[in-house]
Amino acid sequence: MTKITMIGAGNLATHLSRALQHADHEIVQVFSRTEKSATHLANQLDCPFTTDLNNIIKSELAIIAVKDDAIEEIEKHINFPKVHTSGTKDLDCLTKSKVGVFYPLQTFSKTSNIDFESVPICIESNDSSFYELLSKLANSITNKVYRLDSKQRRQLHIAAVIACNFSNLMYRFSEDICKEHSIPFEILQPLILETANKIQSLPPSKAQTGPAQRGDKLTIKKHIAALEANSDLQAIYKTLSNSIKKHS
Amino acid sequence: MTKITMIGAGNLATHLSRALQHADHEIVQVFSRTEKSATHLANQLDCPFTTDLNNIIKSELAIIAVKDDAIEEIEKHINFPKVHTSGTKDLDCLTKSKVGVFYPLQTFSKTSNIDFESVPICIESNDSSFYELLSKLANSITNKVYRLDSKQRRQLHIAAVIACNFSNLMYRFSEDICKEHSIPFEILQPLILETANKIQSLPPSKAQTGPAQRGDKLTIKKHIAALEANSDLQAIYKTLSNSIKKHS
Repeated sequence: MTKITMIGAGNLATHLSRALQHADHEIVQVFSRTEKSATHLANQLDCPFTTDLNNIIKSELAIIAVKDDAIEEIEKHINFPKVHTSGTKDLDCLTKSKVGVFYPLQTFSKTSNIDFESVPICIESNDSSFYELLSKLANSITNKVYRLDSKQRRQLHIAAVIACNFSNLMYRFSEDICKEHSIPFEILQPLILETANKIQSLPPSKAQTGPAQRGDKLTIKKHIAALEANSDLQAIYKTLSNSIKKHS
Repeated sequence: MTKITMIGAGNLATHLSRALQHADHEIVQVFSRTEKSATHLANQLDCPFTTDLNNIIKSELAIIAVKDDAIEEIEKHINFPKVHTSGTKDLDCLTKSKVGVFYPLQTFSKTSNIDFESVPICIESNDSSFYELLSKLANSITNKVYRLDSKQRRQLHIAAVIACNFSNLMYRFSEDICKEHSIPFEILQPLILETANKIQSLPPSKAQTGPAQRGDKLTIKKHIAALEANSDLQAIYKTLSNSIKKHS
């Protein structure tokens, strides 16, 4: 059992705190600048809270789960072992002796419930005993724990933006087309899910299908012509089809 | 119970035949130009097969589940009610009296098993009684049946290419980044699945996250700099981030 101070009360802090408490760790305090968020999470966890950086309770570690921009300002006030949870920030943005990174790679939202057991956690530390503590902590809430250094984590974050945010943009383009032509978007939902499902067992490079992959120039030409009214999407269609052709 | 002649023995023909047989319809014959494919599917279904277009057995309907390019050549030989299964071909590429389209929107592969109950089927016909037959047939294997005309189906196909094939391209880019930096790609699998999962209950336009969506210029700038060695992907990253910003 590890005693933890939770810094932040947003989506990640909430999901993470619940998972840690569920695995019998103790959240000794929640900090948030906003009293409403602090009390909301503290009530869920049945633990104290503070909105004052000078009143943070010392514990075995502080988990700093706040916006990237706020990490450096906040971490100065914490003089005991601490980790941040950011995909983009280097380990050395944290000062003092024992520091680490505890980066769960998943998209968290207020509404949807995430089963933490399947969330990969990437860890890093400047101290081997602290690394061991982080590794144990991570392994107590998920069976997917990875050691990545700051450079790898930065690259992983880029890969995540492309795989997650840009895929969602593709879904949005398709949603726009459906709306424009009075087609229920739900027709595409099973296809989208199966596409993501496929790459759980097959590398994406082996899962590619579609007109560009099979060199079906006629269909590509027709699609490009049909997108004439939307020149941005038309250009993106061309670029991405060319990229698939190049890869295939 | 409907008597059906299955024209084709590829992935779609195989999955569709099995689902139809499972729903107590009778596949009276399988046609394929390739004897190996024809026998393979006919054996699974325990039904006759032919490789000769002049020996096709007449039934209540022929389902033409072959490559788009082959539809017009093959359909000439079928002089009883028939449908094609293509997303891109118009209804009127089929000649003679009762014709229709029976378009299951899903990505089918030899290896993965698809539960047909959740596969949307889009139907269209030039004849109201034949439309009724197609509607009954579709409803016997799935609970997602949609009436779409040829123009809508063409647009849906474009939307499907964008949502499915282009998303897979995003997965491939992220796979490439992982490989280059010795990061196990499996770290991204849960995120990719959750991203597709989210839009099962939330419109993609409401599900957008990431640096471009929240206007995090610094992160975008860093990502673009980190992609310097791959100018194609760098350009795509810029274009798609700008598109998210425009939409947000």
